[in-house]
Amino acid sequence: MARPIITLTTDYGTNDHLVGVMKGVVLTINPEAAIVDITHSILPHDILDGALAIGQAYKYFPPRTIHVVVVDPGVGTSRRPILVAGDTHYFVAPDNGVLSVIYDQSETIHAWHITSEHYFLQPLSNTFHGRDIFAPVAAWLSKSWQTGSFGEEITDYVRFSVPKPKTAGTGVKGVVLRVDNFGNLVTNITPADVPALIAPDAKFTIRTGNGEVKKMAQTYSLGTAGEPFGIIGSSGYIEISVNKGNAARTLGAARGAEVTVEVA
Amino acid sequence: MARPIITLTTDYGTNDHLVGVMKGVVLTINPEAAIVDITHSILPHDILDGALAIGQAYKYFPPRTIHVVVVDPGVGTSRRPILVAGDTHYFVAPDNGVLSVIYDQSETIHAWHITSEHYFLQPLSNTFHGRDIFAPVAAWLSKSWQTGSFGEEITDYVRFSVPKPKTAGTGVKGVVLRVDNFGNLVTNITPADVPALIAPDAKFTIRTGNGEVKKMAQTYSLGTAGEPFGIIGSSGYIEISVNKGNAARTLGAARGAEVTVEVA
Amino acid sequence: MARPIITLTTDYGTNDHLVGVMKGVVLTINPEAAIVDITHSILPHDILDGALAIGQAYKYFPPRTIHVVVVDPGVGTSRRPILVAGDTHYFVAPDNGVLSVIYDQSETIHAWHITSEHYFLQPLSNTFHGRDIFAPVAAWLSKSWQTGSFGEEITDYVRFSVPKPKTAGTGVKGVVLRVDNFGNLVTNITPADVPALIAPDAKFTIRTGNGEVKKMAQTYSLGTAGEPFGIIGSSGYIEISVNKGNAARTLGAARGAEVTVEVA
Repeated sequence: MARPIITLTTDYGTNDHLVGVMKGVVLTINPEAAIVDITHSILPHDILDGALAIGQAYKYFPPRTIHVVVVDPGVGTSRRPILVAGDTHYFVAPDNGVLSVIYDQSETIHAWHITSEHYFLQPLSNTFHGRDIFAPVAAWLSKSWQTGSFGEEITDYVRFSVPKPKTAGTGVKGVVLRVDNFGNLVTNITPADVPALIAPDAKFTIRTGNGEVKKMAQTYSLGTAGEPFGIIGSSGYIEISVNKGNAARTLGAARGAEVTVEVA
Repeated sequence: MARPIITLTTDYGTNDHLVGVMKGVVLTINPEAAIVDITHSILPHDILDGALAIGQAYKYFPPRTIHVVVVDPGVGTSRRPILVAGDTHYFVAPDNGVLSVIYDQSETIHAWHITSEHYFLQPLSNTFHGRDIFAPVAAWLSKSWQTGSFGEEITDYVRFSVPKPKTAGTGVKGVVLRVDNFGNLVTNITPADVPALIAPDAKFTIRTGNGEVKKMAQTYSLGTAGEPFGIIGSSGYIEISVNKGNAARTLGAARGAEVTVEVA
Repeated sequence: MARPIITLTTDYGTNDHLVGVMKGVVLTINPEAAIVDITHSILPHDILDGALAIGQAYKYFPPRTIHVVVVDPGVGTSRRPILVAGDTHYFVAPDNGVLSVIYDQSETIHAWHITSEHYFLQPLSNTFHGRDIFAPVAAWLSKSWQTGSFGEEITDYVRFSVPKPKTAGTGVKGVVLRVDNFGNLVTNITPADVPALIAPDAKFTIRTGNGEVKKMAQTYSLGTAGEPFGIIGSSGYIEISVNKGNAARTLGAARGAEVTVEVA
C-alpha cells in the first residue's frame, strides 16, 4: 500500500520551529508518513483565509490523504478538536469553521469530537495543539484508519458561509478574498454570479480600489502592459490582473477591498 | 528499518537555491533519507537564535534522527565542523556553540571533529559548507552510523550559556528571546525563576517595551481584546501576548528588549 | 530502484496553496515520488532569475532527477510546454528560455514539445499550468521514463544568453545578479573575466552602488567589520560582502546594479 500522506496548513509561518516540531511528532508516531506542506502563511488567526486555502487545495491530493488544518485562535479554550471524513479525504482541525469550504464541497460528512487523550502529547499545553493534539491524531489515524477510536461522532460542528457576492443594481457587489504572489486580486465573484462577464460583446465595469476594468482576458499576458483586466483564475473566481504588473499596487486594493460589477 | 531522518536548520532563508542544493547532496548520497526542514529563518549569523531553535525542536523527532544545524559566520576559517551524539539524536554543525542548548539538555555527549575529507564535496568551497561538509556528512552517517569514521573524538567543543534572567530587587530582569509569528514576545523567564507569576492572588508587574502586564492567562484567547497579558508558552517560557492582537506592536518591543518582573 | 525525485522551482511564493496543489497532483499520479523544493521565491515573471537558480542547483541532485521549473509569464498563450533531457537530468518547463543555463552546461540536449493532452489535468486552465501540465507530466515521466510519449522532438527551443560582463577600459563592467539572504551582492563576474582579482599584489577597484572595494578575501568572516570586500562565492561568481554586515544595505546596491572593475 502507498505511504500515507499527511498535509499541513497553518498560520504558524516558517520563521519558527513550530512546523518542524509538528513534523517530528508525526514521524515519531508514523515514520512512513509522507508530510506535505500546503501553506503556513494563512493570515494569523484568520479562519476564513484558512478555510479557503484548504478548500482550494485538498481535492488535488489522493484519496485517503489526511489534512491537518490549524488556524486556532481559541487554542486552549473549550473549542473542540475534530476529525472529519469527507467524501474521500480526512481532516483534523479545531472546530471553529475552518473546514467550512470542505463541508460545502462534500456530499457526505462524518465528524468526531476528538477526546481520546491517550493519543495526545503529554503534558498537554494550552498554546500549541498543533503539536499536542492535531499532529499526533493525524499520525495515529494514518496507522489505524479507525476514525471512531478518537471520540464520539457529532453533527453540530461549526460551519460558516463563505461571503458571497450580493446583487447590486444591474450587477453585483463582492470582495477581494486574497492577493496572490503576483499581485492579482482574487475576488469572490464567479462567472455564474455575473454571466455578462463572459458573454461576447457584453459591456461591464468592474471597480475596485481606485481603478476600473472594462474587459476580460483569456490569459495573464494579454492586454496592454500596465492596464488592468479581469480573468477567470484557476480556482474559478474572477481575478483582477495587470499584464507584467501588480494589480494590487496599480489599483491600490488589498484583501477585503470592495469589488463592484456594473453591467450596461 | 525505518527511513533515516535528516533535519535542516539554517540561516540561509528560502529565497535562494541553497537549501535545495543541500537536499540534492543528501539524496545523491542516500536516496532513502527523509529530509525535514525545521526552519531556514534563523536570524543571519545569529548563533544563539539557532541554538534555541534546534534546542526546542530536536526532542520531538524520533531517536537516531540526524539534525544538520548551519549557522556559520566563521565558514571557511579554522572553526571546526563537528559531529555530536547526544542521548538519542545526532547533530552535524560548526563548532561555534550552536549546539549549546543540546549540551544543556543531554546526559551524555560525544563529539567528533570532522576531518575525513573524503566525505566532503570537492572542490571544497570557503563559503558554503552546508553543501560541501554538513549535508554530505549527515548523509553518509545515515548510511553507515559510524560516528568514529569522520574524525577524532574531542571534548573541548565550544559551549556558551543561554542568557538567564537575573535577580533584580523583588523580582528578575530578563530579555525577549524571540517574537513569534503572532507577535507574541517569548522571554527567557520561566515560572521557576519567579514562582509568584503562577501563584494564586500574587501581585506582580511585568514591564517590557512601553507596556505593563499585571496578569497571567491560561490561553491566548482570554483577556480583554487589546490588553497584554503573560502566558506560559509551549517551550516553558513566559510569553507576553495580546488577545486578537500583536504584542510586539502593541508594546513596541522586539527581540533583545529588556523584560523586568517586579513582585509586590 | 530508488524513489524518483521531482524538484520544484517556481515564482509562486509559499503564501498561497499553489505549490501544495502541485505536490498533490504529483502524488496522485505517482505516490512514490520524493518531491523537493528548490525555491519558490524566483522573482515574479523573471525568467533570468529562474534560469540562474535551476542552473546552479540541478547538478547537485542524483542522475534521473526530474526538475519542474515554472516561471511562466506567457501561461495560456501559444508558448510551448517542453520536456528536456540533459546529460543526466530531466526538466519540465515552459519554452521561454528558463532552461538556458541548463543548455549552456549540457553536452547533449533532447527536447520534446509536450502535446499529449491525455497527460494534462482537465479542464485545462489558462492560468495555472504548473498544476495542469508541468506537475502531471513530471509525475507521469517518473513512472514511465518514456520521453517520446509526451510529444514530438524539437530542436528550436528558446534559448537566451546570460548577461556576461563587458570589457571596459582596463577592466570589466558587469551587474549584480542577485542579493542573497545575508545581503551579499552576487555579480556575474568570475575570476576568469578579470584574473587580476585573484593575482597576488594586484591593485583593483570594484565599484557598485555607492561603494568601492579594493581587496578580495578568502572567507566571509575576514576583513574589518563593516568594510566591504570581494569574495569568490559558492557558484563561482565574485560576490561583494561585508563582514558581520549586509553589503546590499552598506553599499546601497540591489539586483541589477552596475558593477565595474578597474585594474591598476
